[in-house]
Amino acid sequence: MAMLLILPGRNPTNIADLLEARLPGADVRIWPETGTREDIDFVVTWNHPEGELGTFPNLKGVMSFGAGVDHILADRSLPAAVPVSRVVDPVLAEDLREYLVGVVIAHRRRFHEYRESQRRMSWEPHRYTRASRVGILGLGRIGSTVARGFAALGFQVSGWSTGDKSLPGVSCHTGPEGLIAITAGADYLICLLPLTPATEGILNYSLFASMKRGSCLINAGRGAHLAEADLLDALDKGMLGAACLDVFREEPLPPDHPFWKRPEIIVTPHVSALTATETVTAQIAENYERIAEGLPMLHPVDRIRGY
Amino acid sequence: MAMLLILPGRNPTNIADLLEARLPGADVRIWPETGTREDIDFVVTWNHPEGELGTFPNLKGVMSFGAGVDHILADRSLPAAVPVSRVVDPVLAEDLREYLVGVVIAHRRRFHEYRESQRRMSWEPHRYTRASRVGILGLGRIGSTVARGFAALGFQVSGWSTGDKSLPGVSCHTGPEGLIAITAGADYLICLLPLTPATEGILNYSLFASMKRGSCLINAGRGAHLAEADLLDALDKGMLGAACLDVFREEPLPPDHPFWKRPEIIVTPHVSALTATETVTAQIAENYERIAEGLPMLHPVDRIRGY
Repeated sequence: MAMLLILPGRNPTNIADLLEARLPGADVRIWPETGTREDIDFVVTWNHPEGELGTFPNLKGVMSFGAGVDHILADRSLPAAVPVSRVVDPVLAEDLREYLVGVVIAHRRRFHEYRESQRRMSWEPHRYTRASRVGILGLGRIGSTVARGFAALGFQVSGWSTGDKSLPGVSCHTGPEGLIAITAGADYLICLLPLTPATEGILNYSLFASMKRGSCLINAGRGAHLAEADLLDALDKGMLGAACLDVFREEPLPPDHPFWKRPEIIVTPHVSALTATETVTAQIAENYERIAEGLPMLHPVDRIRGY
Repeated sequence: MAMLLILPGRNPTNIADLLEARLPGADVRIWPETGTREDIDFVVTWNHPEGELGTFPNLKGVMSFGAGVDHILADRSLPAAVPVSRVVDPVLAEDLREYLVGVVIAHRRRFHEYRESQRRMSWEPHRYTRASRVGILGLGRIGSTVARGFAALGFQVSGWSTGDKSLPGVSCHTGPEGLIAITAGADYLICLLPLTPATEGILNYSLFASMKRGSCLINAGRGAHLAEADLLDALDKGMLGAACLDVFREEPLPPDHPFWKRPEIIVTPHVSALTATETVTAQIAENYERIAEGLPMLHPVDRIRGY
């Protein structure tokens, strides 16, 4: 048996070394050096070339290198019987909470404007409003942690999820009416949804039209949640006042993309939460051993539901 | 009886109007239009000219327009028998918590650098460290609220105060050894002390020498806590890596002040917490009535202790 790492655009030598230290004698290969394809029974991947997963006849499991699995599920060459799993990093949720709390406060309290004033050596205090409302789309492990973090800092927090949820200090909603209840009231609307056919493009013109005027959209879900042209249109029309985007349909964001130059858009380069190498390698090693023993992988994904 | 507002550099007409609405018939005067000085029995002030407080022979109380009273206690013309009070705004502590959490996250997660990268249309992600330690000098009402806020976000928090304190999730220290225990371990050292003769200049070269190399100093206490030349020297020598300053010995910070141009210093124009006008006017009105009835003012200050 062999494990194959398909991580285009990264140098996975370090990961492979850590895995070999945890799994003495294991056959760890780095794509595109696949060797004999029949040997591969476990693939770990992030943004592999579509069609690649169907080329391993003895595949027993595919694991995402991160929390999302949309890149794996989008590959129709992957036989329906092959189980899919993902990394669940408890610290990832805390990192996202930190990033999002920081982004909201930096916007509310005008940190970027003060940085500009400092450049001009100019003392320009601004008053601030109190009690911003934060709406969170997605109340899974990550969304719940983020919601509780904002609530602990005195924000009014509401959240939206597919199934009913109950979280202390958070007003929870579901369904299409629930979505509108949140968008209409939120000063900051944060997308943390998984990417599925049902959520692809959910951040679109009609959603922006239901948002509070002057409010701020934050996307820390996936690039494909956002209808990019709709956002520019909605900003032009003042439907929302600002956006902070950490994920994009194409990453790195191309140099000629209009988002870079819009003063109301804050672009961060997919840094809201970076999976800790140790957590990932421990979970990859565990899944490798589980597959060798014929056991189900850790953190399996429901391929129909999409997360 | 009459109340005098001494608020140089501000336009207190709005405050005077709100007070007259709360206190129908009250004699509210705005400095320098004092009228007959014998009439004045209650002064509300922020940064009054030194010596002014001794010119009102019938003064029964002086109230600070904010949380600090050092500007009042520094005026030796104020008779020892005149009681001093201050504003206690519970929301002020929450505002400071928000500002400080935001400042620390913005620095940890390099928001200003990403803003610069965006300007250059350049995708430059950086990895981040986990588990920063926050040290807080001052664990009064404000310091305690701030400490709990950081702890709720997963930071390791330690705090220093004159008297023994106990706060869940916060390692509390006291005395000179306690101070060194905190400065040696903190990635972010936050000053929230009251300004007294014992704390004036406490942020000086010898404290910086005890700080963790590369750490960040944040002053949201008073400008006079900081020995300004020592900070520049310590930054030059790499004793600390950065500073975020919201308060200064002279405010507004003069245009030729070296702080403006140092890339490692973040200057914000005294906006960490702005007292809500409603809270202030309610407490001023209540103290006016208490003085009229011969009662002690709300939130009195111990003039010997200094806070």
